[in-house]
Amino acid sequence: MRLWDSATTRVNDAILAFTVGDDPERDLALLPYDCLASAAHADMLHGIGLLSDKDRSDLFGALGEAYQLARAGKLPIATEQEDGHTALEAFLTEKVGEAGRKIHTGRSRNDQVIAALRLYARDALLEIADASVALASVLIDRGREHAATLMPGYTHTRQAMPSTVGQLLFATGEGLIRDIDALILALGHANRSVLGSASGYGVPLPLDRQRVSDSLGHLELDLNSVFVQNSRGRFEGVVLFALHQISMTLSRLASDLILFSSEQFGFFELPVDLTTGSSIMPQKRNPDVLELVRAVPASLLGRYAEVTGLLQGLGAGYHRDLQRTKAPLMDGLEDSRNVLAVMQLAVERLGVNKEACAAALGDGIYQTDAVYAHVRGGEAFREAYRKVKESPQARIDHDELLRTRVHEGVPGTDQSEPLRRGLERIQEGLAPHRARPVSLGKA
Amino acid sequence: MRLWDSATTRVNDAILAFTVGDDPERDLALLPYDCLASAAHADMLHGIGLLSDKDRSDLFGALGEAYQLARAGKLPIATEQEDGHTALEAFLTEKVGEAGRKIHTGRSRNDQVIAALRLYARDALLEIADASVALASVLIDRGREHAATLMPGYTHTRQAMPSTVGQLLFATGEGLIRDIDALILALGHANRSVLGSASGYGVPLPLDRQRVSDSLGHLELDLNSVFVQNSRGRFEGVVLFALHQISMTLSRLASDLILFSSEQFGFFELPVDLTTGSSIMPQKRNPDVLELVRAVPASLLGRYAEVTGLLQGLGAGYHRDLQRTKAPLMDGLEDSRNVLAVMQLAVERLGVNKEACAAALGDGIYQTDAVYAHVRGGEAFREAYRKVKESPQARIDHDELLRTRVHEGVPGTDQSEPLRRGLERIQEGLAPHRARPVSLGKA
Amino acid sequence: MRLWDSATTRVNDAILAFTVGDDPERDLALLPYDCLASAAHADMLHGIGLLSDKDRSDLFGALGEAYQLARAGKLPIATEQEDGHTALEAFLTEKVGEAGRKIHTGRSRNDQVIAALRLYARDALLEIADASVALASVLIDRGREHAATLMPGYTHTRQAMPSTVGQLLFATGEGLIRDIDALILALGHANRSVLGSASGYGVPLPLDRQRVSDSLGHLELDLNSVFVQNSRGRFEGVVLFALHQISMTLSRLASDLILFSSEQFGFFELPVDLTTGSSIMPQKRNPDVLELVRAVPASLLGRYAEVTGLLQGLGAGYHRDLQRTKAPLMDGLEDSRNVLAVMQLAVERLGVNKEACAAALGDGIYQTDAVYAHVRGGEAFREAYRKVKESPQARIDHDELLRTRVHEGVPGTDQSEPLRRGLERIQEGLAPHRARPVSLGKA
Amino acid sequence: MRLWDSATTRVNDAILAFTVGDDPERDLALLPYDCLASAAHADMLHGIGLLSDKDRSDLFGALGEAYQLARAGKLPIATEQEDGHTALEAFLTEKVGEAGRKIHTGRSRNDQVIAALRLYARDALLEIADASVALASVLIDRGREHAATLMPGYTHTRQAMPSTVGQLLFATGEGLIRDIDALILALGHANRSVLGSASGYGVPLPLDRQRVSDSLGHLELDLNSVFVQNSRGRFEGVVLFALHQISMTLSRLASDLILFSSEQFGFFELPVDLTTGSSIMPQKRNPDVLELVRAVPASLLGRYAEVTGLLQGLGAGYHRDLQRTKAPLMDGLEDSRNVLAVMQLAVERLGVNKEACAAALGDGIYQTDAVYAHVRGGEAFREAYRKVKESPQARIDHDELLRTRVHEGVPGTDQSEPLRRGLERIQEGLAPHRARPVSLGKA
Repeated sequence: MRLWDSATTRVNDAILAFTVGDDPERDLALLPYDCLASAAHADMLHGIGLLSDKDRSDLFGALGEAYQLARAGKLPIATEQEDGHTALEAFLTEKVGEAGRKIHTGRSRNDQVIAALRLYARDALLEIADASVALASVLIDRGREHAATLMPGYTHTRQAMPSTVGQLLFATGEGLIRDIDALILALGHANRSVLGSASGYGVPLPLDRQRVSDSLGHLELDLNSVFVQNSRGRFEGVVLFALHQISMTLSRLASDLILFSSEQFGFFELPVDLTTGSSIMPQKRNPDVLELVRAVPASLLGRYAEVTGLLQGLGAGYHRDLQRTKAPLMDGLEDSRNVLAVMQLAVERLGVNKEACAAALGDGIYQTDAVYAHVRGGEAFREAYRKVKESPQARIDHDELLRTRVHEGVPGTDQSEPLRRGLERIQEGLAPHRARPVSLGKA
Repeated sequence: MRLWDSATTRVNDAILAFTVGDDPERDLALLPYDCLASAAHADMLHGIGLLSDKDRSDLFGALGEAYQLARAGKLPIATEQEDGHTALEAFLTEKVGEAGRKIHTGRSRNDQVIAALRLYARDALLEIADASVALASVLIDRGREHAATLMPGYTHTRQAMPSTVGQLLFATGEGLIRDIDALILALGHANRSVLGSASGYGVPLPLDRQRVSDSLGHLELDLNSVFVQNSRGRFEGVVLFALHQISMTLSRLASDLILFSSEQFGFFELPVDLTTGSSIMPQKRNPDVLELVRAVPASLLGRYAEVTGLLQGLGAGYHRDLQRTKAPLMDGLEDSRNVLAVMQLAVERLGVNKEACAAALGDGIYQTDAVYAHVRGGEAFREAYRKVKESPQARIDHDELLRTRVHEGVPGTDQSEPLRRGLERIQEGLAPHRARPVSLGKA
Repeated sequence: MRLWDSATTRVNDAILAFTVGDDPERDLALLPYDCLASAAHADMLHGIGLLSDKDRSDLFGALGEAYQLARAGKLPIATEQEDGHTALEAFLTEKVGEAGRKIHTGRSRNDQVIAALRLYARDALLEIADASVALASVLIDRGREHAATLMPGYTHTRQAMPSTVGQLLFATGEGLIRDIDALILALGHANRSVLGSASGYGVPLPLDRQRVSDSLGHLELDLNSVFVQNSRGRFEGVVLFALHQISMTLSRLASDLILFSSEQFGFFELPVDLTTGSSIMPQKRNPDVLELVRAVPASLLGRYAEVTGLLQGLGAGYHRDLQRTKAPLMDGLEDSRNVLAVMQLAVERLGVNKEACAAALGDGIYQTDAVYAHVRGGEAFREAYRKVKESPQARIDHDELLRTRVHEGVPGTDQSEPLRRGLERIQEGLAPHRARPVSLGKA
Repeated sequence: MRLWDSATTRVNDAILAFTVGDDPERDLALLPYDCLASAAHADMLHGIGLLSDKDRSDLFGALGEAYQLARAGKLPIATEQEDGHTALEAFLTEKVGEAGRKIHTGRSRNDQVIAALRLYARDALLEIADASVALASVLIDRGREHAATLMPGYTHTRQAMPSTVGQLLFATGEGLIRDIDALILALGHANRSVLGSASGYGVPLPLDRQRVSDSLGHLELDLNSVFVQNSRGRFEGVVLFALHQISMTLSRLASDLILFSSEQFGFFELPVDLTTGSSIMPQKRNPDVLELVRAVPASLLGRYAEVTGLLQGLGAGYHRDLQRTKAPLMDGLEDSRNVLAVMQLAVERLGVNKEACAAALGDGIYQTDAVYAHVRGGEAFREAYRKVKESPQARIDHDELLRTRVHEGVPGTDQSEPLRRGLERIQEGLAPHRARPVSLGKA
């Protein structure tokens, strides 16, 4: 039975199924974070005299137990309990009686859910940030390895000017570094405390919200109780935006790897276990895994549209519509973890066929260099351009090509040092978010 | 082991998990339809002499068994089999040996998946169409019941002109009827046969594709083998568009029911089991179920964006990106079924407080009627408008108001008859899609 | 001054600029349709005795003049008039005095705008349908021309099985035919009359709405006055969905043409005037025009999301939010016209390099045919597959390949006849929408 | 004639119209920034010896002139010049001959466009940030004014617990402060130099890219030349995301202002010039302006989907698809400026009806306070909840209610001080972006 049900209201099963949806499953992943938040809340209630020493100690014991059960996927959530947060209160009440009936003092399920979601997202975002850093790092390593491996540079799917394999990898690494700025923005949202906003209008009690914030290792407090509720959907949107950014960087590399490893190019060789066969064509090795990576931005964009789109027209305060932001958030984080793991493998083990890369440079690709040979000789650019356009020039020796690549960020240069400095700056940005709440085990 | 794996290619577990995702679970729902399509395919292979009488009869037996198992959720799909379609071939081969090794003749998993998806969607769309018709029907009934129940008509969230409760319900009914046109468009896509397109390029065999189409009760053949493959994502988009239409019609009614049943209005009373309580506020009865209905269009829009967005930039033919269209399609159908069931209940049991509705008409709402009283007296509209604007008129008797409502579709009129005719026309549009493939049980 | 302004309300200029936006410009395109709708409305008012013979004839004269001015882009819309519909009423009042002050009897700007938009969209959709049919027709012609021009068929951007240039063109033609079904759905929405719904609650007059509908050549009446208002945004969504479908079909072909005309493929040659050069690279001929075609689905999806997304949370009746659906609709129609014109040119003048196409078939691409040679010899498919996988076979003569392509829709077959039949069926679907309202010139 | 056209390639007018689209108009707004970037580029070319003193001085003179013309909207862009960047080069060449033919040395239109867009966006984002700060500031002022003005707090559109008018305004102010973090992220992207990436592969010259970056007041260099090109679409996406955030915060307030100023509530009075009348209903004052504000997030979401959606499937390097990101970016910035201006007015001049606000508190809204009165008396929360649920309590005196509101961020407290500190921190984040390039006037 739900906490607010009286004997006379029976809920139609079909409706309950619709309203609850996949939530119990997802709630199980949130419950450990609910336990941590509940402990910080209980500790504060004790601090302001609303829980006795025994209440606090009973609750910490039971919450520690619930935490372990939840992490093992074993804390039961009955459908009629509607959600994990109700289930946790029931568990505590059964375990420790009176203190369990006090745990909900000064909070509502509304802020309880947000508190757990933020802690959950903070962990997941840090994990994703670390995986992004690791991937950027291997991109830099392999970029350096192939800094001078010439391949055609393309614009408009047409040969443009000479480039290098390293340039493509460095570009992706620099892209990821930029994307992590968005992750840090999202962490800035995740790492703010909300408990005490209750159902959006606070409570008539002298809560010490800052203390709860500190216990949970949050950087700051979301102050206004209505603002906290308004953050539902908004917060999920910021997280999904950040994940969308990363996915687009990786999708673009995946597109290139798929094309450049095809028969007509043959620049790259994909690790065999990133490919699959066909049920009908014996010769096939398909780049399925990279194709799935390529597709992910569409899912994340769809989810961003979903969580922000449902806010349209809503006034201040909680509405049940907001429950539907949970699944897109959690699925988006899961997709992102997977994509990063797969791309780490793909980049580490990517085979490069140097000869095929170099052999692919066609005659046209040398013409801009021909123009610039004139420019270096003192001719006006536009004149030199016209001249070469009228009489295309010969191919240019590849060593000579590389010798003229000297400015910042041009293909042929080793960009690993400045990119590594970029990664260091990112670690500084991530550092404040690595603080963790006191573990329940030690409490 | 997958059908194309040789002993020397071992697939990394993590990658397999990523590529397979939730598919086995969803594939289970598709498998009964795969069995039906496989039977039609086998029957055709027999017809063109590629299967013996015994092959055909063995396969029909085993497919019948698989069909029952799949419907009971008991046909096993091993992760290393990657998908249900591979699992089905393995099952058949184990059961009937040689004939099982022949079932994949003249098809590929590519068209096998599409064939099953279309049959699955055809059933689901018909079910949703029936539920929409049922809901439209109760909207018409209750619209008729309240055709003369006056309530304020709003524009810009401001009282505009007198309206009726029936007008709101009839409007939603008419909306649903229009939406079913989109469902019929989607059925038109679902009800076309694809088998024989193989991996997108057909096969060098004299397949009789029309016979398969007829066996499956399809209206027509998708002819070009490349077009069939290009339909992945496109088809899912058409279905999700249709579901999106319905969801928007219902979301709009839900918005009104939520607002008009709130304290400040009190026009409607929601059935108590469509509401929930609060963990902190004892007095609360929240319209959670209708809020979830209101939110659903954002999910369906997100899914439409997802399945069509991932097509951007893809060339002709199958790409694994397309696998990611399966979950949004199936989840969208599930959401739609739920929303229709819930709204059926909401409309059937909606309480209407006639007194509150009538009492809410404010002075301003009568002014346009005052203008038209002048107009009926022969004054030019714009002059009458100016006059009433300068000196607002008295309220008008409600019976008098209703007496002047005479033109087609105006509030106060009973629109049930033309709307019922609309429903009949819809049944004509649905009829051709109700034909079913010969059941496996009888084969 | 706006019609409802009293001397004491002055509207802040900045706000007016924001609220009016680009509307006057777009309204100019709508005004001819407003004139047609106004004439039908006036004719009906005359029919029910609310306009004298002279009123009707005065209004028809002035509307004819306004129509010509509007089509020439010369009917003035002052910013303080806010919109073209107000400007038209002002124009009529200035021209014919009393009758001008009566034209707004029994309607509101709300239904006036919708009426004009539907007539505008009906014309535009028919134009787009005709352009789609023309493009499908040239795709069929050129498909037939290249029905036997072998090129590699790809799946997963990997060579799969032999295909033909014709197969790609036929596939796109069949796709367009399917898409026109969606255009017909949109036309079904456009071709319904709305006048008489007024501001959403009708008027207390015996309007003859069916007569207006007939005058405008509409197929049917949207009955319920609230439903008519609820159709704003919904209607635009249906139109944009249909345009989105077409754009995706064309985008996919554009993707292939871009790739297959690149240096690494060389299958196709693009007409030089569909390409542009580079400001820096003399050798470049870039497929800019096709790249823009490729991009258009993202715009149409964005617009679909915009017009349907803003409906979220709105209750029944008009809200000013809905004004923001006008620009996406009109821009979407404009983009679609352009894309079709460009692709017509691209397909008509596409150069095909038959030798390069044939030469590109690699060894792997013949293996499925090798499997099927065994199957035709009586071997079980899965056995044959295993055998060929273990020992790949030799290439197969191209004439031989084509000889084995016999089933419906397989590459190598001429699909022009069934596709032409498809086009004929489409003309039947379009025919009822071709009826036009009595022209103002003749009235 | 375009720079790369030879006499023999004539571009079909229709195609040119399609490819150029609205660009000339928008390019006019970008041209002043192109002039600034061109000056910094010329200065660098002079620094590395590729331009003489006279070249540099000639170019600075002509660029200064072009800058003034462009700002006045008078620099001509001929359709056949295709874009403003080509027009500028033509203008310079006409003015200063030889030096004009050198200005394009070491750059391409690709990086020229990105350079101008970033400078343009930097200015626009700073303007929007300032407007957001100004709006947050007035929200805080008016929040303080109404910190103790009681009104019902709602969840689920149902009365929940007592809140205040100030709480709603403070919540919006705090929301805006959070949103400006996203603007700062976008500024971090805008404020990075790209010149020298050329067409994506740099040039064979010893460019001093850091010097250009410094001249333009950029904080840093986007290093990798391919990454710079890959940033098209991505950058626009980050900007539109930030604008979307702001729009959602304002849309939510607009929703509440619309509802709470309606007849059934009467809490607020909108300034008359934010409302409009009706063409048919004399009594109407509609909140049109706020309704348009409410709708804007749907447009920004649509544009975000558009600019990021078209990237799907693109490989590294420039593609013409990316041109279609320009209009959504510029329109999104324009909408955002408008929305902020309108809301500034709305909040400054919002009328608050204190009596109506207080009178609206219904009996139910006091029940949670009743529960907490028990809790403060020592009872367990869940027990107290059950007790009050069974026997609802009396209303509570409003002064008493306010006295019990003591914790951080609860309704009834003055939150202006911490929010003002938040605004100060934001100014610190904005400060580094306020540096401007040396003006052309002084050069």
